[in-house]
Amino acid sequence: MENITLTPIGLIHTPFATTGDAPRGPSSADGARGRIVVDEKYAAGLRDLEGFSHVIVVFYFDRSTTAPLLVTPPNSPVERGVFATHSPNRPNHLGLSVVRLEKIEGNVVQVRDVDMLDGTPLLDLKPYSAPGNVGEGIRQGWIDEVGGKVTG
Amino acid sequence: MENITLTPIGLIHTPFATTGDAPRGPSSADGARGRIVVDEKYAAGLRDLEGFSHVIVVFYFDRSTTAPLLVTPPNSPVERGVFATHSPNRPNHLGLSVVRLEKIEGNVVQVRDVDMLDGTPLLDLKPYSAPGNVGEGIRQGWIDEVGGKVTG
Repeated sequence: MENITLTPIGLIHTPFATTGDAPRGPSSADGARGRIVVDEKYAAGLRDLEGFSHVIVVFYFDRSTTAPLLVTPPNSPVERGVFATHSPNRPNHLGLSVVRLEKIEGNVVQVRDVDMLDGTPLLDLKPYSAPGNVGEGIRQGWIDEVGGKVTG
Repeated sequence: MENITLTPIGLIHTPFATTGDAPRGPSSADGARGRIVVDEKYAAGLRDLEGFSHVIVVFYFDRSTTAPLLVTPPNSPVERGVFATHSPNRPNHLGLSVVRLEKIEGNVVQVRDVDMLDGTPLLDLKPYSAPGNVGEGIRQGWIDEVGGKVTG
């Protein structure tokens, strides 16, 4: 299939300089504050976003250089298929995090619960709402088995 | 910022040949069935995914050629900032849908609630679980105002 070329639309600033510092997923982020700086030329696209309490951040795991098909998440005793995890080491290195929106000033979006590394390239922002097709009884495979959250 | 090159990892097959046919978001998909065909070389990464009831599909809106910063969603009377919508016409043309997983056979993932066009390039699959930082009282800005779901 043909390759796809993306252009980052901004940068995400967080307190986490290295992978060792970073939380394993937004639910482990303990409220960590971050600043999403959208390039000026895209700032007009932020209109109406402040009405949402949560935002989906789509980003690029720029410091991940490998893409194994099996990975061992921090909370799993055994290897798992990478598509059953949120490991940064994955084909295409795309990351998703739902963060809490605090405020927007011009081209800067202030958020909480960031789990990305400082300087992570931003690819997209989308408004969050609970998926309409998700009922109460979701199954989470190996995550339920280890009694944890989706991480790593 | 430097460009990023992605390689599709498969193709998504759905009943929807044109934009006019496609539902506006998974919650309008009314259970539509789709087949996600992952390239053979990535199939090993699907291990453990079948334990999840829902999967996040990350895809490329390959038939969207424009990226306006203000868009008028189907359920909105006025223009909205594109990042406050799920419009396919957006910078980087990245799409996200949460679909219900039915079964996995080899490299084929059978799902329901698809809203993508037939032949859409697949970029990633991730297990779905409800974000840990989302409480009961989420605010959905203009979406709440129009009493609708996030679409368009």
